[in-house]
Parts: sequence; C-alpha cells; structure tokens
Amino acid sequence: MSLKKNAVIGQSGGPTSAINATLAGVIEGCMDITSIDAVYGMKNGVEGFLREDFIDLKEIFSDKSNFEKLSLTPAAALGSCRLKIKEEAQFEKIFEVIEKHNIGYFFYIGVNDSMDAVAKLEKYRAEKKADVDVKFIGVPKTIDNDLCVTDHTPGFGSAAKYIACTVAEVARDCAVYTQKAVTIIEIMGRDAGWLTASAALAKELTGMGADLIYLPEVPFDSEEFIKDVNNKLSDAKKPYVIVAVSEGIKNKDGEYAAKAAMSGAVDTFGHAYLSGTGKYLENLVREKIGCKCRSIELNLMQRCSAHIASKTDIDESITIGRAAAKAAAEGKSGRMMAFLRDENSPEYKISITDVDISKAANLVKSIPADFISKDGKNVNEKCLNYMKPLIKGECAVKYKDGLPLFFSF
Amino acid sequence: MSLKKNAVIGQSGGPTSAINATLAGVIEGCMDITSIDAVYGMKNGVEGFLREDFIDLKEIFSDKSNFEKLSLTPAAALGSCRLKIKEEAQFEKIFEVIEKHNIGYFFYIGVNDSMDAVAKLEKYRAEKKADVDVKFIGVPKTIDNDLCVTDHTPGFGSAAKYIACTVAEVARDCAVYTQKAVTIIEIMGRDAGWLTASAALAKELTGMGADLIYLPEVPFDSEEFIKDVNNKLSDAKKPYVIVAVSEGIKNKDGEYAAKAAMSGAVDTFGHAYLSGTGKYLENLVREKIGCKCRSIELNLMQRCSAHIASKTDIDESITIGRAAAKAAAEGKSGRMMAFLRDENSPEYKISITDVDISKAANLVKSIPADFISKDGKNVNEKCLNYMKPLIKGECAVKYKDGLPLFFSF
Repeated sequence: MSLKKNAVIGQSGGPTSAINATLAGVIEGCMDITSIDAVYGMKNGVEGFLREDFIDLKEIFSDKSNFEKLSLTPAAALGSCRLKIKEEAQFEKIFEVIEKHNIGYFFYIGVNDSMDAVAKLEKYRAEKKADVDVKFIGVPKTIDNDLCVTDHTPGFGSAAKYIACTVAEVARDCAVYTQKAVTIIEIMGRDAGWLTASAALAKELTGMGADLIYLPEVPFDSEEFIKDVNNKLSDAKKPYVIVAVSEGIKNKDGEYAAKAAMSGAVDTFGHAYLSGTGKYLENLVREKIGCKCRSIELNLMQRCSAHIASKTDIDESITIGRAAAKAAAEGKSGRMMAFLRDENSPEYKISITDVDISKAANLVKSIPADFISKDGKNVNEKCLNYMKPLIKGECAVKYKDGLPLFFSF
Repeated sequence: MSLKKNAVIGQSGGPTSAINATLAGVIEGCMDITSIDAVYGMKNGVEGFLREDFIDLKEIFSDKSNFEKLSLTPAAALGSCRLKIKEEAQFEKIFEVIEKHNIGYFFYIGVNDSMDAVAKLEKYRAEKKADVDVKFIGVPKTIDNDLCVTDHTPGFGSAAKYIACTVAEVARDCAVYTQKAVTIIEIMGRDAGWLTASAALAKELTGMGADLIYLPEVPFDSEEFIKDVNNKLSDAKKPYVIVAVSEGIKNKDGEYAAKAAMSGAVDTFGHAYLSGTGKYLENLVREKIGCKCRSIELNLMQRCSAHIASKTDIDESITIGRAAAKAAAEGKSGRMMAFLRDENSPEYKISITDVDISKAANLVKSIPADFISKDGKNVNEKCLNYMKPLIKGECAVKYKDGLPLFFSF
C-alpha cells in the first residue's frame, strides 16, 4: 500500500484576476512534492467537494504551458461558491469524502467565509477526527486588501493597477473640453478604502488623475463635498474635476451616504430608487452646482481585467500557492499563508509566512489613519509608497486574433 | 519671400483611443513635406483657432520618440471642442487668422459637426475667398463606426477590442457560480449598433461572451426580451446569461426603451428617475424573472482604454493622418480621408482614399440587415468577419512604474 496521499484544491468567494495564479502555484507545488499522489480540483469549492465533483489536475497540467495560460485567466477557473459549512452533517460528509479519496492535503483559496471554513475543518479534525491524517491550508485572495494578518492580499495589486490605469485614462478623456465638468468614479470596497485609494496612483505616476478621494474610513459630509468640488472647479486652468469614491462611504452616523439620501421614490415596478453612491453624488453635483456631471462605476471590471494584471501580483500569487503546498507537505495544518514585507525601498522584498487561520478570518483591515491626508480627502505619501510596488510590472499576456488566450477546464 | 505655407491641425468631438495616432500621422506627414513650413496645433479645435492659441509642433516632435508616446495616449491631446461654426463673423475671423499666420493647410480630426465645419469652410473659401490659398482636409475619428463613406472609422477597432476583451473577462467572472444570474452590459452607440455588435467577438474568439445582443437597428420588445432571457436561463449546464445592449435600443414606436419605462418618479432632488438602458433591463429582469441580476455600463472606458488599443486601428489611424498631409500637399481641399477594404480574407488589406467632405457628414451608417442574425438578437458571420481584422494586434505600450506612459502638451 502506498503511503502517498492525494491533494485537493478549491476556490471560493468573489473572483479576482489573480485567483487562478494561486491555483496554478498550488498545483505546481503539489506536483513537485513526492509524497503527493493525485492532485484534484474541486468544482465550485466545497459545493463540489460534497458531491465528489473532482477534476484530475495532474493530467491537465502535464502540459506545462497550461500553467501560464491559467495564471492569466481571470475569475475562479474551478468555479466558486458561497456555501457556509456549519452543520454537523456537512463536516461528517467532508471527512467521509476525505477518507474515501485518500485526501491528505486540502487547499482552499478564498477569504473570510472560506478561511473560516478551513479554520472550522481544522478544529473539527482536532476535536473529533484526530485519527484522520489531513492537512488544511488556506490561501487568501481578495481585491479588497482588507485582511489583517498579511501585508497585502493576492489580487489587490491587479485590481489597483486596473483602477489606477483607468482613472489615468478617464482623466485624459475628461481633460479635452474647456467647460466645467465633474466626473465621479465609484470604486468597490464597502468597508475598506484600499481600492479607492489606488485611484491616487494615477495622478502620482502619470500627472493626471483623481482630485478628490472619499474613503469609507472617513465620515462623509455632503455639504463639505460640494464645497470641495466647488473649490476644485474654481481653478481657471483646469475645468475638470475627477472624484474617486468608495461605494461604501458613510455619513457621521454610520449610515451609507447613498442610502441616507433615498426619498422613497419608486420606478414603474415599484422598486425603491436605489441609486449607487456614484449616481447619488452625480445628482448632488447637478443639484447643488449645476455643471456637467457624469458618474462611472468600475463594476466587475476592477476584479476581472486580467489583461492588465500586475506582474508583481501574479508572480506573488503563484509563489504563495507554491508555498502553501510546501507548508502542507511539511505537516502544517490550520494555517493561512500570508505576506510579510521585508523591505519597501529602494528594493521591494517580501517573504511568505503562515499564520493561525482561526485568527485570520473576519477581521477587516481598514486604511490606517496615518495613511490618509490631513483633510481626509486623499491618501498621503506613506499610503502611496505602500501601494506603488504592488502594481508594478506587466504580464506577458498571450493574444490570439486580438483577444487574450484564456484557460478553461 | 518664402513660398512655403504653414499647416495647422485641430481635434474635435468626443475622444477616442486612436485620435492622437491620427494627430501623430498628420504631424509626421506635414514634417516630411518640404512645402510646409511651421506645423501648428490648435488648442481645443476651432475654439483655440479663433483665439490664435497655437502650439509649435515641429519643435516638440523633433524628438521622434514623442510620436510613439502620442499615438498611444487616449483622448485629444490638443484638447477638443463642440463649437459649431455658423455665423458669418466666425468664418471671417477664421480666414483672418489663416491669412495672418500664412496657413496653407488646415487639418481637422473629428466627425459629423467637425466634418461639417470643414465642408462649410471649403464652401466659404470657394464662394467668398477664392484668392486665399488654403486647403481644408478632414480626417474622421469615432468609436461609433457610423460613417457612410468609409469602410470603418479610426477609433472603432480599439473600442471594439476593449469591449470584446471586457465582455470575455466579465463572462468568466459571471461563470464561477452555480446560481442563475443575468448580467447586462450597456454599450455606447445611440444610433448605430457597431460597438454593441463587437461584444459578439468575445464568444466567437474566446468561447465565452454575450448570449444575447440587442442593437438599436432592431425594434426592442420587453416581453420578448424576458422570453429570450428565460429561454437562455433554462440551460441547466450554464446558469449565467450575458446580455449586451446598446444604450440606444428603441421600441417599435421609435421611443427609447428606457425612456418609455419611466414612471415620473423623482429622487430627493426632484429629478426624474432617468435610469440608463442597462439599469432598465436589470429592473425588468428582477421584476419579471426574479433572479440575480447586475448591469454594467462600459461608460467612458470604451473610448479611452488606450492600454488595450488595437494595433491595426492605431497603425491605420497614423497612416490615414499621413495620407491627409499628402492629399493637402497635392492640392486637394474639401476632402475627407476614408478607408477602402480591398481584401478581407485570407489577408485583410485596406487602401486610403478621399471623398467629397460635404457628402461625408451627418449620414449615419447603421448595421446592414444582412449582418444581423435572423432572430434579430445577435450578429451573423458576415458581421463577425467584417469586425475581426479591426481588433487584431496589440500595441507595444510603454509602462513606467506600472502605468502607461502618456504624452501631454
């Protein structure tokens, strides 16, 4: 009887441009470890695991060129899920499948609920299945960068690069006319302003970008907002104003700004007039200032524009995946992989560590106060210096007939 | 006294990712022609021309590396305007400036109103200023591709490439979950559906993309729309449906679909609830089907995402600019430059011609009926074959610190 065990990998939660790079790293790492036999992918995270819906990855990735293609494909190639594991029967079923398929290594790429699931599986094993030899390892991913125990999250750099590039391009588009105009760019991140902060990189690095940045970390005041915009509009040499705003800005009472402004108006279907934050600010500018105003929502593009992924992010996402395989092979379990920043300047250097996964989940890392400018309407040099290395480098995306070559199972 | 004359170049109308490539082409072309002395750029189109706000371009572009940088910078680098020339005094002033600055060549890059302006200037010269030796040449640009006298317009290929790439990426993002969901992507083009049609390239070339495409050329019926979506949702193997829709879809009475659905509801400011077309369809799906639904507006990004410009488009935009300079030097005036497609397959080949500019302006080229699928909810192979060559090739965008290097005056 072989002493070898099999590995299984899943992806969960919202997609990013780098989640498949981490998948590629874990697969590569597992294929290099002699104590690992088969490497399975679970379809749609634990949903697929529960119904034993596995893909044999070793066969697919015997063609090494698939690693590169997978790494530059946006969104979870194995599929994702939002299932929370909480019932005893689910835990029992998972351990039944683990034993049935001789799983010795269980990797889960996700954030919050996903890391929470891994923590719970480890706890269940320790308490009730001590005889089952299986290692549980979590690998973080989120564009939001709001995880406490890591310097930054895989996926953030690529989203930040897309946002910074788009803000730089939109600023050039807005700059062509001589008439006063306000452009509001709504960016994801309901609780933490990291993605919105990345809009600041456009002006810092290309000379044109967001003039005002509103973060969820700073209470929003609509009267002050109008004053800020009017102030910027008064510059006779620059008639356009670009505002970057987090979808999650809240007033001083902690209420979402856009929600607080709702009137109870309904559309033809009787739906409440649920404007987004950008639309709300657009209406505010139209009403209070009366100049030309447009709002733009960066929407799903900020998490799936892999064609402009950050090479730093993609490379690190692969590396953290490989490190996860290594950690499991070393006998670690109940751990989440994390980045440490060893050096920022002149050379950016990171190392990879692992932390107790039960302490990793569900704590939001906001932008610290000393990263925010004194007036609260921008980020400062410290924040820019933190973000700059993360968007560096361009990936060698392969194109066919004008569009990127994507991988799919 | 020198027989040499000066050239002046302006940009007008909405920005594109390729309008600066054409500017670069005209400048290069003018610099190569010995009968041209100074080459001026007018700031903000005729607005700047009227106040003699000129930039000396020869000096700036003595550094040849600026051509490449300019060609890959989105939006009109010289600034744009929407001024219509109609009053006698404006024409008189323009000819006064022409004579004062010894302008012999007047180039205008734009569409519709801009080409109309060039046509009027030529007419005015012929009728009232026959003694003034000045050539007026128009060069088209528009992402909309809705100009009759040219095979396609400079700027369309890059916008189409951005749209196709984004639809392909968004499709992968939507495909990760197992729950039924509809994603609606709203695309520019109020009168012609070319940009919306380019969404079809995603599925054609990458295997995943828009499942339904609604063009302004086909009357929109909301009940049929719900039937179409329900039909696509019934595929058990593919729970997500992607809809690409033109902002300009109209019902059988010619009324904008979104407008027809307005209820008179107002927001807190008393504004009518002006939802966009995507938002309108999103609400319709929520109401009539009840599944998860999201709408995405590609907004300004579709006209300014130069980082993913089509190399074919950028190269052609430079070439048509150079051809404009040559045509003027040959003594042509009152002409608009245009593309002819000499061959499509196996090799795509174009040539450049010039047409009577008075016949070029203000006629919309819609998608012909034989480019649209029989059910009216997609485009067919003929349309795909027309579009495919236009998005081909990637530009060698130069990056610094993670963001593209842009040119500015």
